[in-house]
Amino acid sequence: MLTRRQILLGSVAATGAGVAATISGAAAAEEYRKGYAAAELASETKLAKSKTAWSGDHQAGVESHPQAHTNFIALDLKAGITKSDMLRWMVILTDDISRMCNGVAALADPAPELVVGAANLTITVGFGPGVFEKFNLQDQLPAGFAQLPSFAIDELDKKISDGDVLIHVGADDLQLLSHITRNLINDSEYFANLRWLQSGFTQAVGTLPAGTTQRNLMGQVDGTDNPEIGSDDFANRVWISDGPEWAIGGTQLVLRRIKMNLNTWNMLGRTEKEEVIGRHLDSGAPLGKKNERDPIDFEATRADGLQVIPPFAHIRRASAQNPDEIFFRRPFNYQVLDEQAKELESGLLWTAYAKDLTKQYLPVQQRLAKFDLLNKWTTPIGSSVFAIAAGFKPGEVLAEKLFG
Amino acid sequence: MLTRRQILLGSVAATGAGVAATISGAAAAEEYRKGYAAAELASETKLAKSKTAWSGDHQAGVESHPQAHTNFIALDLKAGITKSDMLRWMVILTDDISRMCNGVAALADPAPELVVGAANLTITVGFGPGVFEKFNLQDQLPAGFAQLPSFAIDELDKKISDGDVLIHVGADDLQLLSHITRNLINDSEYFANLRWLQSGFTQAVGTLPAGTTQRNLMGQVDGTDNPEIGSDDFANRVWISDGPEWAIGGTQLVLRRIKMNLNTWNMLGRTEKEEVIGRHLDSGAPLGKKNERDPIDFEATRADGLQVIPPFAHIRRASAQNPDEIFFRRPFNYQVLDEQAKELESGLLWTAYAKDLTKQYLPVQQRLAKFDLLNKWTTPIGSSVFAIAAGFKPGEVLAEKLFG
Repeated sequence: MLTRRQILLGSVAATGAGVAATISGAAAAEEYRKGYAAAELASETKLAKSKTAWSGDHQAGVESHPQAHTNFIALDLKAGITKSDMLRWMVILTDDISRMCNGVAALADPAPELVVGAANLTITVGFGPGVFEKFNLQDQLPAGFAQLPSFAIDELDKKISDGDVLIHVGADDLQLLSHITRNLINDSEYFANLRWLQSGFTQAVGTLPAGTTQRNLMGQVDGTDNPEIGSDDFANRVWISDGPEWAIGGTQLVLRRIKMNLNTWNMLGRTEKEEVIGRHLDSGAPLGKKNERDPIDFEATRADGLQVIPPFAHIRRASAQNPDEIFFRRPFNYQVLDEQAKELESGLLWTAYAKDLTKQYLPVQQRLAKFDLLNKWTTPIGSSVFAIAAGFKPGEVLAEKLFG
Repeated sequence: MLTRRQILLGSVAATGAGVAATISGAAAAEEYRKGYAAAELASETKLAKSKTAWSGDHQAGVESHPQAHTNFIALDLKAGITKSDMLRWMVILTDDISRMCNGVAALADPAPELVVGAANLTITVGFGPGVFEKFNLQDQLPAGFAQLPSFAIDELDKKISDGDVLIHVGADDLQLLSHITRNLINDSEYFANLRWLQSGFTQAVGTLPAGTTQRNLMGQVDGTDNPEIGSDDFANRVWISDGPEWAIGGTQLVLRRIKMNLNTWNMLGRTEKEEVIGRHLDSGAPLGKKNERDPIDFEATRADGLQVIPPFAHIRRASAQNPDEIFFRRPFNYQVLDEQAKELESGLLWTAYAKDLTKQYLPVQQRLAKFDLLNKWTTPIGSSVFAIAAGFKPGEVLAEKLFG
């Protein structure tokens, strides 16, 4: 951004409005003033203007750092909805996505002035197991996609679990996200009823250096152990590469709502917290290491002969024990008022993306459910799986190969 | 922020880390690199580092543009709490406020790493009518502060109304706000039970030019007609200037939760919406005018003889009809899932601040309750009043003159 001083001294050309001329005298002063104002304005509205590409081989909203705000919207199909209704719905959603992710109001948006830009909006659509059943599309199920078995640790509430269709919306502005969420629900009302809405957050743009791993509400750095965004490893772990055509380039999502018992967790001291997790609280480094991304040494022992990373530590059981168990984690924080208990309910809307949930995610989850000391302070209370359709390009329709 | 080009050309001294030396050669390149990195980092964390002054004649969080996120926390005193307990509680809150608004974790914060800065945090504390009753402090009631009468339009839910003590927290980062909210509730738990939590939002920093009046979820520019922040007019309307000492420099707050029926509202066309409100949707200008802040002309008539601003328009009845009716409005948007109806509930956490609610706010509210066409699409479902204590300086304790 130009400083006022640079403008006044005329030491830079006014660039804000695309002006790059040599100018002098009173006209120059006026041009500079305008250039300054434009540069200021550009900086003040930069976030609104930020866009994330919505078209391509993959849907947006998976291979990216989470935006500050996220809404998971689950809908259940209305009685009598047909496969061709589904296609009509997808046509509408495709149009909505292509407009709104460009920072443009959806068709017939009743309050278009609320769309001040895209603020990195992404909209990702997926389908629960029920959809494949209802339309007799079992042959279109991607390999490894199925309802999760029940785990002994689960205390699932059906009101925040399952669902036929997921619309996952993320943006860096909660006001925009709220408006877009309403638009998407309204545009779906002929086809489906709202089942649940779960809202999550990470830190606002402008609070942490770019690329910083977020912390969860326990205070831990959460999400370090992940395939790198943009890497071949990411693509190989996450994007479906064979099977039904509609899903090639898509993925599978499990969303777990994990409630934290922060009242008891916070009775632990820092050392105990670090041992339960297996990472240092300040840096996020594995115990015994210095930096967040230092490799974990599960074998290291201390002078007293004990393991540096205790046998019960969460990262010991959560880490992939073979390369088949690698998937992509994207945790979002949530905090709501528990109306019954009259206290805050805090936790994670924890997501895992994998090309095959059964192979990659399930063994890890089973191991954690069996024994993870962290289970003492966390309870899964919601759970859903969705098959995320492939991406689409201008002129194509989301999931048309499934419903067309 | 320095551009990469400026750094590379060496046309500016590296300033990010406070370096202002003339440097050359390899050392210069290294200094430039560091300066660039520091400037980048400063820009990426600027929001976290932003602070709003917490000490002074007035509490923070009133005379300022609303932050992106806000939590209104209402608490009810536990049985047996005494006036000296109240003072102890205020000592704790004073300490919390002075630390957290400086971007520093509160004492014994169980997750201090979550405090990445202040992100313009403000914390404002007030007391409901019940506190004055319980401690027999009726002589400490500021003039004009009382429970509101009931209005025919109200459909109040006690679960989101009233309360003994209000802690109003605002910040530009929802994650920080969530953590601070938990800390404040925890630090209050000896003294009071959580009664309700209501969360609101405006647009994120970086989406609108500084000073832009926000829009509500109906799409209207909302909050134009207000005393100017920082003006004598503001001070004269808002800050209590006589009466009980603890409240001099304080104010009175009414918080109304106003549910919008957006489904029926959005059946109206743009012209109808504009006529119901009395302002243009795009600019926020009064009907017949061009700019948001153009003075309202209630007398103007159209060529067909009808009034430009219809007799039933909201601004006609909401505007002050004499200078005594001027107060400060600060609307926050909210959107939650209505679990029963399985639909979104959207609306305003609408606040008014006045030195004397009975004189300044009540006549306007009575006029609106009697007849305002907008009532057809809006319903007040929550309502509370709080007397906001004066500000405090380092070494002083919040509301010590009330409870000391």
